[in-house]
Amino acid sequence: MKKRASVTFQPDGATVEVDVGSGLLDAAIAAGVEIDAPCGGQGRCGRCKVTVHGDGVKRPPSAHLSADDIAAGQVLACQTQVMGDIEVSIPAGMARLAGTPRDHAGAEPEALPGACDWRRNPAVRSVALEMEPPSLTDSLSDLGRLYRELARHDVAETSVALPLLKDLAAKLRESEWKATVTLEMGDLVNGHHLPPRVIAIAAGDDRPGSYGLAIDLGTTSVVAYLVDFETARVVDTASAYNRQISYGDDVISRIVYSQRDDGLAHLQRLALDTMNELIDELCERNDVAHATIHEAVVAGNTIMTHLLLGLDPKYLRIEPYIPTMTIPPKMLAAEVGLKLNPQAHVHCMPAVSSYIGGDITAGVISSGLFATDKVTLFLDIGTNGEIVLGTKDWLIACSCSAGPAFEGGGVRRGMRATAGAIERVWIDDATFEASYRTIGNSPAAGLCGSGLIDLLGELFMTGIIDRSGCIDMRLRGRHVRDGDLGPEYVVAWAADSSTGHDIAINDRDIANLLRAKAAVYAGCEVLCKNVGMAMTDVEQILIGGAFGQYIDVQKAVRIGLLPDLPTDRYTFVGNTSALGAYMTLLCVDMRQEVQRVADRITYIELSADNAFMNEYNAALFLPHTDDSAFPSVAQSAEARRLAEMISAEFGGDMEAYLKANR
Amino acid sequence: MKKRASVTFQPDGATVEVDVGSGLLDAAIAAGVEIDAPCGGQGRCGRCKVTVHGDGVKRPPSAHLSADDIAAGQVLACQTQVMGDIEVSIPAGMARLAGTPRDHAGAEPEALPGACDWRRNPAVRSVALEMEPPSLTDSLSDLGRLYRELARHDVAETSVALPLLKDLAAKLRESEWKATVTLEMGDLVNGHHLPPRVIAIAAGDDRPGSYGLAIDLGTTSVVAYLVDFETARVVDTASAYNRQISYGDDVISRIVYSQRDDGLAHLQRLALDTMNELIDELCERNDVAHATIHEAVVAGNTIMTHLLLGLDPKYLRIEPYIPTMTIPPKMLAAEVGLKLNPQAHVHCMPAVSSYIGGDITAGVISSGLFATDKVTLFLDIGTNGEIVLGTKDWLIACSCSAGPAFEGGGVRRGMRATAGAIERVWIDDATFEASYRTIGNSPAAGLCGSGLIDLLGELFMTGIIDRSGCIDMRLRGRHVRDGDLGPEYVVAWAADSSTGHDIAINDRDIANLLRAKAAVYAGCEVLCKNVGMAMTDVEQILIGGAFGQYIDVQKAVRIGLLPDLPTDRYTFVGNTSALGAYMTLLCVDMRQEVQRVADRITYIELSADNAFMNEYNAALFLPHTDDSAFPSVAQSAEARRLAEMISAEFGGDMEAYLKANR
Repeated sequence: MKKRASVTFQPDGATVEVDVGSGLLDAAIAAGVEIDAPCGGQGRCGRCKVTVHGDGVKRPPSAHLSADDIAAGQVLACQTQVMGDIEVSIPAGMARLAGTPRDHAGAEPEALPGACDWRRNPAVRSVALEMEPPSLTDSLSDLGRLYRELARHDVAETSVALPLLKDLAAKLRESEWKATVTLEMGDLVNGHHLPPRVIAIAAGDDRPGSYGLAIDLGTTSVVAYLVDFETARVVDTASAYNRQISYGDDVISRIVYSQRDDGLAHLQRLALDTMNELIDELCERNDVAHATIHEAVVAGNTIMTHLLLGLDPKYLRIEPYIPTMTIPPKMLAAEVGLKLNPQAHVHCMPAVSSYIGGDITAGVISSGLFATDKVTLFLDIGTNGEIVLGTKDWLIACSCSAGPAFEGGGVRRGMRATAGAIERVWIDDATFEASYRTIGNSPAAGLCGSGLIDLLGELFMTGIIDRSGCIDMRLRGRHVRDGDLGPEYVVAWAADSSTGHDIAINDRDIANLLRAKAAVYAGCEVLCKNVGMAMTDVEQILIGGAFGQYIDVQKAVRIGLLPDLPTDRYTFVGNTSALGAYMTLLCVDMRQEVQRVADRITYIELSADNAFMNEYNAALFLPHTDDSAFPSVAQSAEARRLAEMISAEFGGDMEAYLKANR
Repeated sequence: MKKRASVTFQPDGATVEVDVGSGLLDAAIAAGVEIDAPCGGQGRCGRCKVTVHGDGVKRPPSAHLSADDIAAGQVLACQTQVMGDIEVSIPAGMARLAGTPRDHAGAEPEALPGACDWRRNPAVRSVALEMEPPSLTDSLSDLGRLYRELARHDVAETSVALPLLKDLAAKLRESEWKATVTLEMGDLVNGHHLPPRVIAIAAGDDRPGSYGLAIDLGTTSVVAYLVDFETARVVDTASAYNRQISYGDDVISRIVYSQRDDGLAHLQRLALDTMNELIDELCERNDVAHATIHEAVVAGNTIMTHLLLGLDPKYLRIEPYIPTMTIPPKMLAAEVGLKLNPQAHVHCMPAVSSYIGGDITAGVISSGLFATDKVTLFLDIGTNGEIVLGTKDWLIACSCSAGPAFEGGGVRRGMRATAGAIERVWIDDATFEASYRTIGNSPAAGLCGSGLIDLLGELFMTGIIDRSGCIDMRLRGRHVRDGDLGPEYVVAWAADSSTGHDIAINDRDIANLLRAKAAVYAGCEVLCKNVGMAMTDVEQILIGGAFGQYIDVQKAVRIGLLPDLPTDRYTFVGNTSALGAYMTLLCVDMRQEVQRVADRITYIELSADNAFMNEYNAALFLPHTDDSAFPSVAQSAEARRLAEMISAEFGGDMEAYLKANR
């Protein structure tokens, strides 16, 4: 028998027994204690630092552990083995799932484009039936009687699953042969409808209600819409962070984590927990029974979909990057593990490839791209950056691993867009003092994506950083200083923050942000060049995605994240993934449409594309090596320099300046 | 909290703790100890007699308990409540599941009638595939790649269930993109085929085999055929008693038992256990993996089908006798609980009504009745007696609750047809001594159905019983005597038996047998009269069913069980239920056919038919009140009287007799 050791986690006091030699991170999971491991347990990020009391561990050295750390008993949980009984202290605030993503506070699913009347053709329908009681001369079976009555309502060839028969006899007799039957109409295959299927049989004649669920299963956040099939309207929405984020910030880290023992099952459970908690919340708040949710549509990227369904995503990150499937099978809620009516079907949106998933096909539908004549660039900027270019006649797409920088990952003081995140920044070019705004006006806790875009633009415009993103140490002073990780600029002071330390950005953070923005821009360039177009030929740009909707276009253009096109070509289309799921839930034609979109999109694998590396390298500057591509930025830099000069040389007197230059 | 009591069963020594007040029979079930309760726990049959040591029981009086029984601590387990700690002795030989039903020792499924080439069109087919490995330029998903290759084999629009995707990626890569895919072709609905469905994906290119299972789920015995889909032949057969028989000999007793707490779940489990043990036996003996059994067809009566699927049969015995369903849904083996490939479909044969089940529709198919021009009477005489009259153009059916008399139930020394059962009887009309033959030439243990038919005929022909079945006590002597339950005739002596007591038949036993035979004959009469025919218009009589195949027609006619028609009109068609399941397994057209049969049969509910009671009462005599309906019997009785007279008056000298009568 294997030796066992006991691990107690503080401050919770949760204790677990594990085999000697087990990983400390795995012990925490077994104990139900959350330890962040944003890199997926690779030992790369150093975020899973905890303090061990006792000698019972085996720990490898790490660049993330200073001599002081080691002396204090700190270890990286993901790299440490349990060798004997220990007690472990988890630092306060490690679990990063607090708060609600702000993405959906104001979701407005009403304002949707659409080529058909997508509210009028759901697969799920309810029919109220009243049957004749049986007699010796009309001795049809209970089910036969139900079918006969359905046929009178023009529903024929219906099928019903065994579990629904278990209490049918008692139910029909108690309700005196009245029932509300909820059906799923059959798909159209080869021009013929498959037979309908009974999802639920409710006794009696009060309609118990019939609901659907549209879910955006994002890498970072998960959003659910509860939809009433009778009114075809959203009853309520709820959102939460994907509980998987403790085990990887981005999809690659999740894949890495899934390769650990039980890693896949653990990530699957976390996705289900996240979704089921949202379902519980929606049901409770709206007094809706889980059993009356009769269908669900899930839009997620290919990795999220694989993890949700318990499919090993291993080959998605090994060339040639092949997923197990792009068209998920029809599944029952019971088989997926979602707390809906067990007979409800769960549809996952079809994907194009490993890195263009069902969230993007959903977006192409709900943004209206699939039906437009205009040359359109659709960007979904979230944890990953997916880009689709096309019209109703052609579609081409790529995915650039933007990395989680804009979601707060890979940036020391980065954070997700919750209360306390700095979302807007202005820098005074004389004093270099930053003023800023935080979400909820809470004390500053860190920088979220929109704050980072602002900050980067301001640092560049004020000359604190140069075109390659390096902090100019000649400006060393109160704000520009040598930090423990090299040159840094302080945005907020410890006294004003909720964290007790200064909130600064350093050269490494900036390099990460430049890589992220370069990847997105280069992706756009590659798509245009692939179809022989210039960026300026793009007639409209649709920005979707969790993060996308909070971007200030002008500021994003200033750092070269978005192409320098007239702002009236830009439209924010919200959470297109959730909206696409919602439309698909209510309209079976949309299911055909989304499959056609998935079939039609030509996928460009950037890692196999030589042009991409060139474009990427060229985009690693602010705003770009090719200034001519960003005329508005050059213009505004020029204007800024001019304003400075007028201040300095003419005391700010425009009349004097004009006189001198007349 | 409820008080608990401990019950120990001897000789096993199994001990169980139950709530005080629990039934003793339920305690035995909980302990896994088998106590027979052939009447389903109604206290009617008195077979569940056990001896209780200790006072901890509450027992009602019963006509089945003599003063001596009570003094000895005997109780009826089904009527007794446990009130304190007790020890219970189970009499030896109580469990009645020993041995194998003889029904299928020599099953010959080759000799089947059939209108189409039913071996050539199974739903299950296997295809060996070789796929191109993926590359950056051919990055179709694993599943898409499989579908593409299937399309090249003319299989399109295939669906696959989630569990098959779990290891698909690893499987295809390990086998270097070779696989054998087993598919189920889609049903024909409204003239269009439903899409095919993948049942199994086996890695590599050696064909793992593909098998099907045809099961006759009888009230008394269960028979399974293992069929190879490649050869369309039966590989092996196995049979066992239905483990439910301890809890009811006939369907009505089973329904009664199912209404007890957990009764339904218990009967369902017993049916599954019986079937799964047969599957294990077939798999082991033929070196076949359970996962390669890709489809099953089950033919059972409506009650057996309901119990197998866990559907409450309560309303099947309450007027107007309505089953939950007659057309069972499509079900996966995993959902039914059968140990096959979990994705295998289990089809239950469609029924007509509560008392004309899937075993009979199977029989109408496999006996060829569904396709014949001749007016045919099909009798399935088993625990129940079902009768179908018709041609390919019309079908009418009824069910007569023959009761379990011919299966050994309701007859004191009755037993099922296993080793030691007396199956043939001759009585010397001078000495009244019986000679007999037992199954397996073992010492006599009791009388089985065919033995009882012989015995009844011989008793009648020798004048030991009169036309109404009463033993003539004027013949009192060594064989005819007063038994503890009244007049009886001894067939076998204790010294020659394995049971230690004489094997006799009494007036009550005979009355039960007369009721059984009268019900069958009256059923035949009612069907004929319903379509305005005389019994003599019947052109052929097909005898099926577990018991049917061992009947001696002449002897059955002699007692008025079967109509008095020329013996060349009679054909034995074997276990038509199993054969029908087998044909349906191999031929999807047969599935349409059997459904058409079920739709076409007109069911006559005898309990609601006035003519039936008259026919039944008229048939309660030997052979019948109407001698003219049994001319051959009158003739042979006449001949026998003549032979006796010749013996007595002419010393057996035929010449002398002839001379005297010339």
